Order: sequence, then structure tokens, then C-alpha cells
Amino acid sequence: MAHEIRKVGIVGGGVIGAGWAARFVLNGIDVAIYDPDPEIERKTGAVIANARRALTRLFGQALPAEGTITIAASIAEAVHDADFIQESLPEREDLKARLLAEMDAAMPDHAVIGSSTSGLLPTKLQAQMARPERLVVGHPFNPVYLLPLVEVCGGDRTSQATIDTAAAVYERIGMKVLRVRKEIDGFIADRLLEAVWREALWLINDGIATASEIDDAIRFGAGMRWSFMGTFLVYRLAGGEDGMRHFLHQFGPSMEWPWTKLIGPKLTDELVETISRQSDEQAGGIDLRTYERLRDDCLVDLTHALERNDFASGAVARSHRLRLDGRPAADGSALADGRLLTIATPVQPEWIDYNEHLTEYCYLKLFGDATDVVLGIVGAGQDYVSAGFSWYTVETHIRHLGQARLGEPIEVRTRVLTADSKRLHLFHEMVSLKQHAVIATAEHMLVHVDAKAEKSAPAPQAMQDKAQTLVRGQAHLPPPEGVGRQIKMPG
Amino acid sequence: MAHEIRKVGIVGGGVIGAGWAARFVLNGIDVAIYDPDPEIERKTGAVIANARRALTRLFGQALPAEGTITIAASIAEAVHDADFIQESLPEREDLKARLLAEMDAAMPDHAVIGSSTSGLLPTKLQAQMARPERLVVGHPFNPVYLLPLVEVCGGDRTSQATIDTAAAVYERIGMKVLRVRKEIDGFIADRLLEAVWREALWLINDGIATASEIDDAIRFGAGMRWSFMGTFLVYRLAGGEDGMRHFLHQFGPSMEWPWTKLIGPKLTDELVETISRQSDEQAGGIDLRTYERLRDDCLVDLTHALERNDFASGAVARSHRLRLDGRPAADGSALADGRLLTIATPVQPEWIDYNEHLTEYCYLKLFGDATDVVLGIVGAGQDYVSAGFSWYTVETHIRHLGQARLGEPIEVRTRVLTADSKRLHLFHEMVSLKQHAVIATAEHMLVHVDAKAEKSAPAPQAMQDKAQTLVRGQAHLPPPEGVGRQIKMPG
Repeated sequence: MAHEIRKVGIVGGGVIGAGWAARFVLNGIDVAIYDPDPEIERKTGAVIANARRALTRLFGQALPAEGTITIAASIAEAVHDADFIQESLPEREDLKARLLAEMDAAMPDHAVIGSSTSGLLPTKLQAQMARPERLVVGHPFNPVYLLPLVEVCGGDRTSQATIDTAAAVYERIGMKVLRVRKEIDGFIADRLLEAVWREALWLINDGIATASEIDDAIRFGAGMRWSFMGTFLVYRLAGGEDGMRHFLHQFGPSMEWPWTKLIGPKLTDELVETISRQSDEQAGGIDLRTYERLRDDCLVDLTHALERNDFASGAVARSHRLRLDGRPAADGSALADGRLLTIATPVQPEWIDYNEHLTEYCYLKLFGDATDVVLGIVGAGQDYVSAGFSWYTVETHIRHLGQARLGEPIEVRTRVLTADSKRLHLFHEMVSLKQHAVIATAEHMLVHVDAKAEKSAPAPQAMQDKAQTLVRGQAHLPPPEGVGRQIKMPG
Repeated sequence: MAHEIRKVGIVGGGVIGAGWAARFVLNGIDVAIYDPDPEIERKTGAVIANARRALTRLFGQALPAEGTITIAASIAEAVHDADFIQESLPEREDLKARLLAEMDAAMPDHAVIGSSTSGLLPTKLQAQMARPERLVVGHPFNPVYLLPLVEVCGGDRTSQATIDTAAAVYERIGMKVLRVRKEIDGFIADRLLEAVWREALWLINDGIATASEIDDAIRFGAGMRWSFMGTFLVYRLAGGEDGMRHFLHQFGPSMEWPWTKLIGPKLTDELVETISRQSDEQAGGIDLRTYERLRDDCLVDLTHALERNDFASGAVARSHRLRLDGRPAADGSALADGRLLTIATPVQPEWIDYNEHLTEYCYLKLFGDATDVVLGIVGAGQDYVSAGFSWYTVETHIRHLGQARLGEPIEVRTRVLTADSKRLHLFHEMVSLKQHAVIATAEHMLVHVDAKAEKSAPAPQAMQDKAQTLVRGQAHLPPPEGVGRQIKMPG
């Protein structure tokens, strides 16, 4: 991308436009939004509030300082100083084509426009623009601030530079770009969604199933798989050891069963009424905002679950988190006072409890990781363990002095207090860089063992020497506060 | 259900049949399985091993003792003493109808049969049975041991009692029953899956997108939502404050766009080759078993994520866990000497390190869980935390005296040493029942806090009284070995 995106103009402030505004602002980019709706400010504010809640749960304090949001009085005002423009007007080709030309006329020379259209062809949308090469489709999914997918598709006159710029902008705000190489109605995702939707309408139209039953048929079965594996990988696994070829040959004959309906049923008043009534029954009186928060909570927790597996949307979130965080990892190098910096990380989603605090046992996990860094420095890393020797922790004393929340940057600073031929006495302090405070300490006694003989044994001389070097490097420091404590009731 | 299910006969041992066997066995029900494949024992064993790993992660110690699995030499041997029979033969109507009649002839009078067919009509499947009223479709989704959905659909001659029995059996093993009221080809779920599949095949056939791109179009977007909300609830939310009626009227015109194709493209050799090659590329050389484990890990973590929200598949898992949990486990009840039994579990797969020992931080996880049991006894469970009060651990001292391996049965035995108005002093011992030895101890000091005020506060009198009762019940015991220790180098 030739330039950094500092300001985005958003034209159209419905559910999608406001969702874009939220995604940009919460990723630290300023936004100007235009919509003729007199309630645009209130509505956009409500969506951003929901998004702030969700993205704070998802990324915690890895999120940058928020961008600003301003309500523009016209299209020209929204786009005139924008580096990037996102159009989310109603799905009418004539309206979009006319107003895209207006945006083109008012925007800076370096800007490009992404259109949120879910199915209109970019070649037609760019027809009235003076600089048609600057228009590309960037089709998102609701809620825009949480779902990573964006389909990027150029028209006949879109330049490659425009496509690349838009893709870079979307990746910058944590999205997964799917480059659609051939321009077709509905692109890729909506072709698939439409197929499900039409079939679902027929099932209701024909009295086979209700809205609620159809939803259950998806969410308790295939929908679970679809959240991380698409149809092809799922069916590959269903093919067993013989894979996709086997599956296709087995499946072949049923391709000709005419189950799927070509077009949707006629949306008669009666069918609209039936579906709407079933939808009301399904919703069970729970209001829209409650459902939106439930949806967002589920999406955040699902993303964390997939992040734990570094897969699908979880892998996208993880790489976005790393990009947001940017700080170098700790490697056990010495701090100015001689202590070792053994851990430096924001609090990760898999370490928090239901209150979004770092959970109790994860303190020991982090202190254990810090101990491993020290062991690596003295030469007792993975190779040493594989060779049959190790240092075992025989005793641990943890003090909890504070708390840390999701995303909060923490460090562990470590002292090697004493060492002899077969013992290491370590003292870790966990510091919150946000609170500038020690939130926990851990004191450990480790014993060097011969794992095969299952007994303690002196460490090699070179390892003992390295440990003594660490002890000497910190010997000038006073004893740490809280060392050698016993647990007892006061007085 | 008129009778308890003790034994299930499974006919057909492919991916689906073996998945059923795993779900039944791991829910404590004995299974006899028949399949002419000479490798049936090895293949079923492999699926059950995967399922054991996944369900142990999902439900942990709530799982009952496993049922037994026997390999039957014939259909008659598999079904003759079964309370319930699950048929998972290849999808050939003639074959199924003939062998269902054979099962019917050999099974006990009280038994009923569920067929796993994904699309054949039960009225046709039951045609040759002497007791057709005992056949119902119970259509599951792969992996059967993890996905909760099962479509239950009777034919013209199926009795209501059979439908109710099958539904009760499936619920007993943790499934979500979707009662399909009208018998149609493909039932409900497969109509929707087929619509996606046919559209996806056209996208490849027409050179629009590859298998991998189509999968991405699902899993990074709509698939995330589909894992907990179906199409109708999603679109209701997309309709904004005006809901489904508004959405339908907006959407109406596009119903007549003929995007969706009626039947799939002809599966020419060339198209099979194209799809298979794209599928190979997508799989990137990762083998089937690795992908299956990744899939299962993701499904387990997703289910846990949804369980946090008590929604969709998470709500199903939660109610199943509660039902399973009915057995006597560690509940903090007093042992003969007055100590509390706070944990009783085999070492779980997710707790072990690469050496298959219980990993360091999981000791604290287990001791923390044991502390939670004590807090539950004194009335400081989840409700109390939700009300804004809690006990925080402020200090922990762990001694490692031994090790435990995967599957080794361990117990935590707990003493409440002292308590005052705002402190609890606990001492846990972790015992290996296999080694008959204490492998670790943990001493904790907890402080009662008002979480909103973020400061310590006296516990309610009733809670203090309960704590004192626990202290008195154990006051006759000598101080535990190792209490009040400091960490220090030997003299």
C-alpha cells in the first residue's frame, strides 16, 4: 500500500455502514460518515457501543487508541479528505452508480472506494465514474466489526493497484480478504447463502418445517462445522481415508436428484405472514439488542476458541492481535538492574476467567514459562530434557497482589537468588505495564534430576557456572520483598 | 421411555456407525457392532479412541464408566439382546429394506430401530419389516460423537411410541432431537446442505472459485454465525429494529433472480479431477487423522465457548453435563477422618505435558477447583460471585512430592485449617490412588472480598458459621506435614 490510511469516509450508515465505521474507529482510524437519516448519529453510536464491547472482549488492551468519528453533512464532506472510502448505500444499482460518481468527483487523487454491495456487478457500478479504476467491491458480512470475511472483486475497469490497496486496508483492520477473480452476481458467499435461503423458504412454503426447525437443523449440525471448515474440507473428511475422489464417486448419482429449487417461492402476503409469525415465535419475545449482544458474545467466544487452535477465524484474530501488539517478545535478556526479562505478553484470551481476569492457575503457567526461559539460559532446554536430564520444581510460593485483564501487557522479571550443585532458587515478579504495579510474585525451588534414574543428581559444571553467573549478576540487589514467606493467619 | 437402554446393537460400521458406537459406549451404554468388513475391530477402535479424547475434553469427569464394545459375527448376534438398534448401512434402499427386515426378525420384542439414512424415506425402508411400526429414522451428522443434531422422522407405519423411544434414547446420549413431521427426501438438514453443495459444484464447474476459496467464503463469514444461529434468526437481526417482515419485503425482488441451479453439474471425469486436485491443494499435505483431531478440538472448544453463553449446542452440552453429573463424584463430602474429598478424577489428556505427566500449572488448576468445592460448601458458589462477592486466593504454597501420569486416578483431600471473619486457610493433599502416595500439597490463604468495592470485607455470618463447622470437623487432626513452610536452601 502506497500510503498509510489515516481517515476513512463512509457513505451510507445503515447496519453495514455503521458496522464499518465501528471496525475502522476501533482499529484506530478516523472516520467521517454520511447518511441522510436524521438519526444517523444516535444509530451509529449504538452500533459502535456494541462493537466496542465486543472488540474489547476479543482483543482487550491490544486495541489501539480509538479513532474519531464525525458526522458529515454531505457526501463531499465525508470523502474530500479521506484516504479510503467505503460505500454502503441501499442495493439499487442506479442509486449506487450515481452517488459513486459523486464520491469520485469529490475525493482526493490518492483515494479509492470500496463498495459493500452484496451482489451488484462492479463493472456496472463504476460506469458513471470519471475514474472508474478506483472502484472495487469490498463485500462484508454482518456484524462487520466481528466477522472477518470481505470479498474483494474488481470490475472491468478496476485497476490492480486499487484492488491491492483495498485488500491492504481491510487486512489492516483485521479482515480476511477473499479475492473474487470473476465478477458474477452475488460473488461467491452470497451464491451459497442464497441457495440455503431459497431452499429454506420452500421448506416453509411447502409446510415441511418452521423457521425455528430450519434454524435448528443448521446450528446443531453442519453449522458447527462450517464455522471453521467449509463444505469441501468437511466432505473430504467424510470420505475417510480415500478422500475427496472417493466421496465424489459415492455422491455422484444423487447430484441428479432435483431437490434444490431453482428460484425462491413467490413471496405472497400469506408466506410473508407465515414466516414473520414463525420468526416472532422463535424469537420468544427477546428483543433485538439482547439478541445482538448474545450473537456478539458467541462470536467472540467462538473466535477465542478457534484462536486456541490457531485455525480459521482464530488464526486471523491471532495474527491481527500480533500486528496490533507489535512489541518484541521476552528472551531472558538482562534488564538494566541485572534481573532477567523472562515473559512479555498481553494477557491472552485463553488465560482469562468469566470475569475476564487472568485466571488463577495461569499465573503458575506464566511463572512456569518464565522458569523455562531461565533453564534455557543455563543450557537446560528441550535438548537437555530429551537427553534424560531436567530441573524439577519441587516447591512454589505464589502471592497474588493484584489482577490483570484481557489484553493487559504484563512482564515477568526474574532473579536467580542462589544456586548450588543441584538446586536453583528463583524469584519471579509479574508486573502490569498498564498499572505499573507488581500483581504477583512466585518463588521456586528447583532440583536437578537424572530423569531415567528418577533421582536428584549434580548438574554439569558448565551449567552450574552459568547459574552462578546469573546469581552474581543480581547479587547487588536487596532480597526481594516477600521472599521466604510462610502462609499463616495474622496475629 | 418404558425401559432403560442397557445395550445397543449397531449394524453397519463405517464412519457413521463407528461414530454411533463411540457415542453410546462413552455415555456408558454397551454396544455390539456388526459389519462384514474384516477390519471392523481396528477401525471402530480408532474412531472410539478419537471420540474418547474429544469427549473427555468436552465433559471431563462428568463422563460415566464406559460401556463395553463387542464385535458381532452376524446381524442376529448384534441385535438379538439389544434394547435399541441403530442401522448405518450404505445408502441403498433395497439393501437397507432387506436387512432392516432381518434385524426386525432377530430383535427382542421391546426393541426399536433407528436408521441413519440421510435421505431415504422411512415408509420405503420399513416396507419389508414384519413390525414396521418399530422403524424410525435417526439421522446424525459427522462426527456423530460430537455434533448434537439428530433428525427423527417416522414413516407411514411408524408408531408414536417408537418415535418417542428413539428421541429419548438420543437425548439420553446428549443429542438434540429435531422431529421431522413430514417425510421428504433429504429431510430438513440435507435439503439445505445439498443446496450449498450443488451451488458450490457449479462455482467450481464454471471456473468462478476453487474449493479452498468456497470454503473460505463460508468459514470466515456466515459459517461463524451458523454455528449458533440459523438463517432465519440471522436475517431477523439483519432486518434491524423492523425485524423479519421488513427484511422479507426488502429481500422480496431478489427471490426471482435465478442464481441457484436446479440440479448439480454433471460430475464428468474432468470435474471430479478438478475438485479432487483442488481439495488436495487445500489439504496441503496434512493427513486425515491430523485434520480429524483438529476438527474435534475446534468442535470441543466451540461447544465450550457456546456453553459459556448457555446457547445453541452449548446449552445442549450443559444440560447433558448436568444429567451425567448425577453420579457420586467428589462433592466435598467428608471422608472418615473429617477431611473433605474435593476432587476425584483420572488425569485428563489436556493436563499432561509431552512426557505424559500431569503438567506443573495443572496442579494449581486442580487445587483451585478443589478450593471452589470448599467455597461451594460454605455458600460462595457461582451465584454468590454473580452477586458481587467472592473469596480471592492471596497466597499459595505448593510442594511437589511425586508425579502422576495420564489416566492415573487422583484425589484431592482438603482441610480447612482456620477461618476468621474474612480469611480461610486451606490445606489440600493430592493423592495418587495408584501409587497410594501424596504427590503434592497446596496451602492457600483466601480473603473474602466485595468485588465491586474492590476491597476485603467480612463474610456473612452464615458463611462464617459454615466455615467454622468445617474447621471444627477436622480440629482433631494433627497439623498437616509441610504446613507453614518457607522456601530456602538447605543449611
